[in-house]
Amino acid sequence: MENFADRLIEAVERKGTPACVGLDPQFRLIPGEIRKRAVDSAATGAQAACVAAFCQEVIEIVAPLVGVVKPQAAFFEQLGTSGMLAYADAVRRARQHGLIVIGDVKRGDISSTAEAYAAGHLREAHGDGHFTVDAVTVNPYLGSDGVRPFIEAANETGRGVFVLVKTSNKSSADFQDLKLADGDELFVKVAAKVNEWGGAVTGKRGYSSVGAVVGATHPQQAVRLRALMPGVPFLVPGYGAQGAGAADVMPCFREDGLGAVVNSSRGVIYAWTRSPYKEQFGEERWRDAIEAAARDMISDLHQALQQARKLQAGPPRT
Amino acid sequence: MENFADRLIEAVERKGTPACVGLDPQFRLIPGEIRKRAVDSAATGAQAACVAAFCQEVIEIVAPLVGVVKPQAAFFEQLGTSGMLAYADAVRRARQHGLIVIGDVKRGDISSTAEAYAAGHLREAHGDGHFTVDAVTVNPYLGSDGVRPFIEAANETGRGVFVLVKTSNKSSADFQDLKLADGDELFVKVAAKVNEWGGAVTGKRGYSSVGAVVGATHPQQAVRLRALMPGVPFLVPGYGAQGAGAADVMPCFREDGLGAVVNSSRGVIYAWTRSPYKEQFGEERWRDAIEAAARDMISDLHQALQQARKLQAGPPRT
Repeated sequence: MENFADRLIEAVERKGTPACVGLDPQFRLIPGEIRKRAVDSAATGAQAACVAAFCQEVIEIVAPLVGVVKPQAAFFEQLGTSGMLAYADAVRRARQHGLIVIGDVKRGDISSTAEAYAAGHLREAHGDGHFTVDAVTVNPYLGSDGVRPFIEAANETGRGVFVLVKTSNKSSADFQDLKLADGDELFVKVAAKVNEWGGAVTGKRGYSSVGAVVGATHPQQAVRLRALMPGVPFLVPGYGAQGAGAADVMPCFREDGLGAVVNSSRGVIYAWTRSPYKEQFGEERWRDAIEAAARDMISDLHQALQQARKLQAGPPRT
Repeated sequence: MENFADRLIEAVERKGTPACVGLDPQFRLIPGEIRKRAVDSAATGAQAACVAAFCQEVIEIVAPLVGVVKPQAAFFEQLGTSGMLAYADAVRRARQHGLIVIGDVKRGDISSTAEAYAAGHLREAHGDGHFTVDAVTVNPYLGSDGVRPFIEAANETGRGVFVLVKTSNKSSADFQDLKLADGDELFVKVAAKVNEWGGAVTGKRGYSSVGAVVGATHPQQAVRLRALMPGVPFLVPGYGAQGAGAADVMPCFREDGLGAVVNSSRGVIYAWTRSPYKEQFGEERWRDAIEAAARDMISDLHQALQQARKLQAGPPRT
């Protein structure tokens, strides 16, 4: 069975970019032409159908450009069971396009309960409406026995896990940055565990199937985390709408230009609501705005990798 | 609007017990007479239908005895969308019985994403298949801006939040027990934040709508946590199958005999697979075994509260 890290690298190299598009579908932000299909917008079933239709369009626009997408479970789950059916639909469509799908579920529990989550998201399932993805995000607060069932399921199925280490939000400092008695911060201890958990299974390209979530908004911490977890792939949220630029995420990459996947959600999928795409395209040309924002992100990351001398010179492929 | 803590206390007093039954439905553990209804056990839809049927029976058995149930989302979610429909069904039935429903979802994310989870689990929804419960469990690793959207939704809807502070599993020590530079452990810092978050909204009975998850397996830490969070209701997992007894959970209660809800899942709902209920009832009388196990738990907690002089003398009501 192929190793997840190898599959992830293959997807990144095939598309020539470490960009990942986040699917964060909020009904009220979906383009009017799709939203108006919901006859009664108070019905979650109708909203969920719009969410599914929007995700299908976004996937078709970005699938030729990027190798990885990250559906955010919360935005589907808020619509109840019909929303989760839209989640399963988005996952299925993305996988049909050959995309690596990272389910941003941030689950975490203990023993048999963690096994149940791991089974639901990482083990093979059949029929409609299942949640099996290529990798999931996992919360480490419960400790090793909360994370291990996910890692075991991932290793047995050729899938992956990204453990939250240092998240992109401001109050990630509340607990993650607390100084411990030995001088390290909590997130450093979590990083050490992630490095240990990942050590057991390493792919041909030298990366583990156990990854880390490291926010783009913390470049200085990223330098330390890259050194602490040399073989760990990073999933980097916070680029774009959350304020981080391409230069900020460079510390997450290794010298080979690999080792990180950089996610943008709102900055791409709602590009027509933001400058400069709002002025250039407007809502009518929302599809073109999404494509332009994805291409710009790809180009920005490519240039930054070149400037950081982490890539051979040359134009981006798209 | 009634305060969640007041509603929780009312439910505990009405039934005369702080016992909570956890709904952790695993298909392979469900009684054969229900399990055999799944014609093709590989189909998650058929398994989910059995899970729903089992939960319905358990709810009907325990509803006259306890005031609170705690469905564990993972065991439903592992069956995909049809499993989540079974979750919504269990929640709906439990609420119809007047039970307080704590959705053990352990969600946690940031800003608009946390708002989406909070909306899905704590705000009013209509139609079939929604996940609205009376309270949810939340993971604190992402910090204040990950937890606040849940608290805001809870305060606006008369619902509640239980933040993971010290979980019942062994490797909760990995991160939660780490010593900080100022001498406290991480879980103490989390407790201080929970106490702060909960301070804003206090009910008539002096308890907050922001609760804490404190494992029954850590009585010494519970003593400290009770003192650190005087007005915070505790949700206490780990009783029964995880090894803690009634004496272990006493530090979670205040002198008024209130302040904690004690959960048992496997020890009650699969009682017929464990001594002494296995010998006494066997699988054929699994309903009687569940009822007996629930009554024994209620009685054990009552006696322990009396011995700890946290209750007026008198027999348990059931």
